[in-house]
Amino acid sequence: METIIQAHERKIEICYSPALFPVYYSNKNCVVVVIDVFRATSAICTALQHGVKRIIPVASVDEAREYKAQGYIVAAERHGEIVEGFDMGNSPFSYMNPALKGKEVVLTTTNGTKAIERAKAADKVIIGSFLNLKAVCNYLEKQNKHVILLCAGWRDRYNMEDSLFAGAVVNQLKQNPIYTGIADSSLAADHLYQIAKGDLNGFLANSSHRKRLARLNLEKDIEYCLQENTMDLVPIFKGNALSVSK
Amino acid sequence: METIIQAHERKIEICYSPALFPVYYSNKNCVVVVIDVFRATSAICTALQHGVKRIIPVASVDEAREYKAQGYIVAAERHGEIVEGFDMGNSPFSYMNPALKGKEVVLTTTNGTKAIERAKAADKVIIGSFLNLKAVCNYLEKQNKHVILLCAGWRDRYNMEDSLFAGAVVNQLKQNPIYTGIADSSLAADHLYQIAKGDLNGFLANSSHRKRLARLNLEKDIEYCLQENTMDLVPIFKGNALSVSK
Repeated sequence: METIIQAHERKIEICYSPALFPVYYSNKNCVVVVIDVFRATSAICTALQHGVKRIIPVASVDEAREYKAQGYIVAAERHGEIVEGFDMGNSPFSYMNPALKGKEVVLTTTNGTKAIERAKAADKVIIGSFLNLKAVCNYLEKQNKHVILLCAGWRDRYNMEDSLFAGAVVNQLKQNPIYTGIADSSLAADHLYQIAKGDLNGFLANSSHRKRLARLNLEKDIEYCLQENTMDLVPIFKGNALSVSK
Repeated sequence: METIIQAHERKIEICYSPALFPVYYSNKNCVVVVIDVFRATSAICTALQHGVKRIIPVASVDEAREYKAQGYIVAAERHGEIVEGFDMGNSPFSYMNPALKGKEVVLTTTNGTKAIERAKAADKVIIGSFLNLKAVCNYLEKQNKHVILLCAGWRDRYNMEDSLFAGAVVNQLKQNPIYTGIADSSLAADHLYQIAKGDLNGFLANSSHRKRLARLNLEKDIEYCLQENTMDLVPIFKGNALSVSK
């Protein structure tokens, strides 16, 4: 049975690490937004925008191998690089391939798919990235539910780019008086986003994963993932897969 | 055997929740600074400054009761209030009592002593608050160790005042070129502290625990705990208790 919450009770909290999700997930009546800006959730949005039908996220490389053995198209990334034996990692550009149109893709990544795995306990799980920022906010406002912004982070640690995106969501939602329960975690990220918003890439210059990707010559991916509102879609988790909300 | 680290490798990380400590504590060669600004760590500094000999932190009210039955002076706080049957909670003012001079005090609080309990795994555990900010920074710079700033938070959630203090530490330490490994968690809190530092109390106006204490008429405690550098001491955990470093 769905609990009906009053409009004036809606909370926005940010969970900065998948390992903390059980602490924040005390109430079934919430939407969880999974965030892995560099690059899993940006790649998922891009894939669905370019016609991939469904993305099946799996937590481990072993599971990914099992799917591959069954003939699935499988993407696997660890530590920023494509895992040996797989055709794709989590570069958004690899999902623009017309050959993937209408297909299912299985995906495992270092942090993003682990966060999705944790979030599955919730009733509603959606995918957020700067690319679909406004679409995510509009979707959340239409739900009569609390919001948990779940940052994938880096190996269960805090990371900057996911926190900035969470702050961007707070920055929009707080303008709606329905959201009165803005937790300290949300206030903090909103402040960061307000400092960074004019130049996200510059603000991230000293951040750890930004530097890691730059070492891997992935500047193009970084710039792509930091674009705001290039697509109007919301990937939603249903059954065992992510697809676009109708 | 102590691992010798090179000066240029020193890291500063912030762990925003006691529940995440095992994620951050991967290296024995670190100092852990336990932070519970409102009010446990401010109270501990105040007690030692006013002549209390040792503070024995315990995680549960049951343990506190056992100490009380043995004749100890015992302070217990839960949810901002003194636990029934105990003489003191964690208001710093209650530790200025001359009758406590030279005595041992057992202390249990909602978040602070739980964080100390987690941190015990580390070689060096010290106590930080705005009151002894500079003393903490000076102490850290003298150690050839990484730094983990452990925020007690609120029931394992992120909170603002502990994050601000952690940011204040980063803000000072980053001026020392020895610290090159400034993690994303540290960059974020430093940004927040830079926004807030001119008016910590005003910045905290919308934060959850600040509001909780205001409801309990603890404005005087809040103002007291937000003073910077009023004492030049560092409480260090040794054996089962906290005392002043000599």
